[in-house]
Amino acid sequence: MTARIIDGKAIAADIRGEVKDAATKLREQGIVPGLATVLVGEDPASHKYVSMKRKACAEAGIESYHHELSKDATQDEVLDLVTKLGEDDKVHGILVQLPLPNHIDEETILNAVPLSKDVDGFHPLNIGALAMKDRDGAFIPCTPNGVIELLDRSGTTIEGANAVVLGRSNIVGMPVSLLLVKRNATVTICHSRTKDLGKVTGAADILIAAIGRAHFVKADMVKPGATVIDVGTNMIDDATRKSGRRLVGDVDYDAAKEVAGAITPVPGGVGPMTIAMLLQNTVRSAQRQPVKA
Amino acid sequence: MTARIIDGKAIAADIRGEVKDAATKLREQGIVPGLATVLVGEDPASHKYVSMKRKACAEAGIESYHHELSKDATQDEVLDLVTKLGEDDKVHGILVQLPLPNHIDEETILNAVPLSKDVDGFHPLNIGALAMKDRDGAFIPCTPNGVIELLDRSGTTIEGANAVVLGRSNIVGMPVSLLLVKRNATVTICHSRTKDLGKVTGAADILIAAIGRAHFVKADMVKPGATVIDVGTNMIDDATRKSGRRLVGDVDYDAAKEVAGAITPVPGGVGPMTIAMLLQNTVRSAQRQPVKA
Repeated sequence: MTARIIDGKAIAADIRGEVKDAATKLREQGIVPGLATVLVGEDPASHKYVSMKRKACAEAGIESYHHELSKDATQDEVLDLVTKLGEDDKVHGILVQLPLPNHIDEETILNAVPLSKDVDGFHPLNIGALAMKDRDGAFIPCTPNGVIELLDRSGTTIEGANAVVLGRSNIVGMPVSLLLVKRNATVTICHSRTKDLGKVTGAADILIAAIGRAHFVKADMVKPGATVIDVGTNMIDDATRKSGRRLVGDVDYDAAKEVAGAITPVPGGVGPMTIAMLLQNTVRSAQRQPVKA
Repeated sequence: MTARIIDGKAIAADIRGEVKDAATKLREQGIVPGLATVLVGEDPASHKYVSMKRKACAEAGIESYHHELSKDATQDEVLDLVTKLGEDDKVHGILVQLPLPNHIDEETILNAVPLSKDVDGFHPLNIGALAMKDRDGAFIPCTPNGVIELLDRSGTTIEGANAVVLGRSNIVGMPVSLLLVKRNATVTICHSRTKDLGKVTGAADILIAAIGRAHFVKADMVKPGATVIDVGTNMIDDATRKSGRRLVGDVDYDAAKEVAGAITPVPGGVGPMTIAMLLQNTVRSAQRQPVKA
């Protein structure tokens, strides 16, 4: 059996449409949803990501306010900017593009983003809320939230499912595990020290791969009929491409799709969801603001 | 094979001895470690717990400052008291005994405890830090920390172990799961919606039972040789006792100890550890204070 392909691009487009409708309504009330983007340094990938996010904002009716600092900017300069944006009523969300240059302490900068504008959802208070019953954080981190949306909108049952998460990063593995627990899945968190990994993943109804190793999950590690969500974004050499490189996930897609029941491709799976959820968090933040006269 | 019994009373006594040594050193520096206890209402169990904690403080050289409010106290009265204690330099830790009366919002009160005095470790920022790599919270919650100490001091290897946690509560199941992930165990979080539970627990090298159901974990759910930590405290009828009742854990101890490699009894396992870790958090808080002239 060949797996059903979960089309992240189409699902993300649906969400971006919903966001656009919400933004239109807000503008009719005199509120222009606004996202501030902060970029420090010259990393080409970071520049590309921010530019994609700003383009998506424009398409969804969200104003973006872009701030670029040189790679030599001091920590205080970045901190001052983030603090100023925190006080700016036009700004409903603040996105600090990571990674920051090494001389700047990421934790200090991210903690300066007010909770009410933490549309990335990385503030420890937001993560703490994910780990606690009966607590609601201000925002859910974008990629983990995108993973849950892919499961829901592809008709995968989360409640009672045996979910296995490969990876325990702050931005994907751990928060997605906490979200799955909140949704009543039985969740196993695996990582580089996990023994007999294939046996663990082989029992998963839902398998989330987020370890950053190209084609790490082989077909024989997938339970027949499982839903596989591939969060990996790895560049590998590919002589057949003009660039000489190709983007692949953490899953050996071609083989795994012959075993899985449903699977996300890379690219076109989780990737488009991250931006869609960022836009969704930004309009939700704007919806919480008092209506301006 | 009969399991090795993990003697929580003896391990807790060791830790209380270490705490007493640390408190003595602090007093020599002119710092008197202090714990404020806040009790609202007349719940007999709560009164007993607070009295046990105060007695343990006295034995360890920690001053305790007790505050009792009537069951009719308003939320603002409790909030004012907690805020005042937060500003009191003599107080290094604040313990608000739970549960609070229904008309008082627990989250509001607990959030008023300054992070630097949150010796219970329940502040969402402390829980968030448990869920994040490379972040250190101010304090680790007492019972989960006690579970880890029992594993360490009984010679159980956590790294690489397959750990299964039954229960996902804010105060035990979830934080202990996060601590086990930090210690490089592969962790499965189970709960009432988990399917085929016996199969999951039967694969556990380390099994933590924290679901609050008397004798729920039967011998056939335990992997031969596993380490079993029983966090349950359930009262059951027992006509042979003068009180007519008896305290038992979540594990069917008599049968499970014939299968497990090591096991904690109830009482005398996890119970004594909670108070020991509270004392440890309180002296650690005092150690962080600037030395008084």
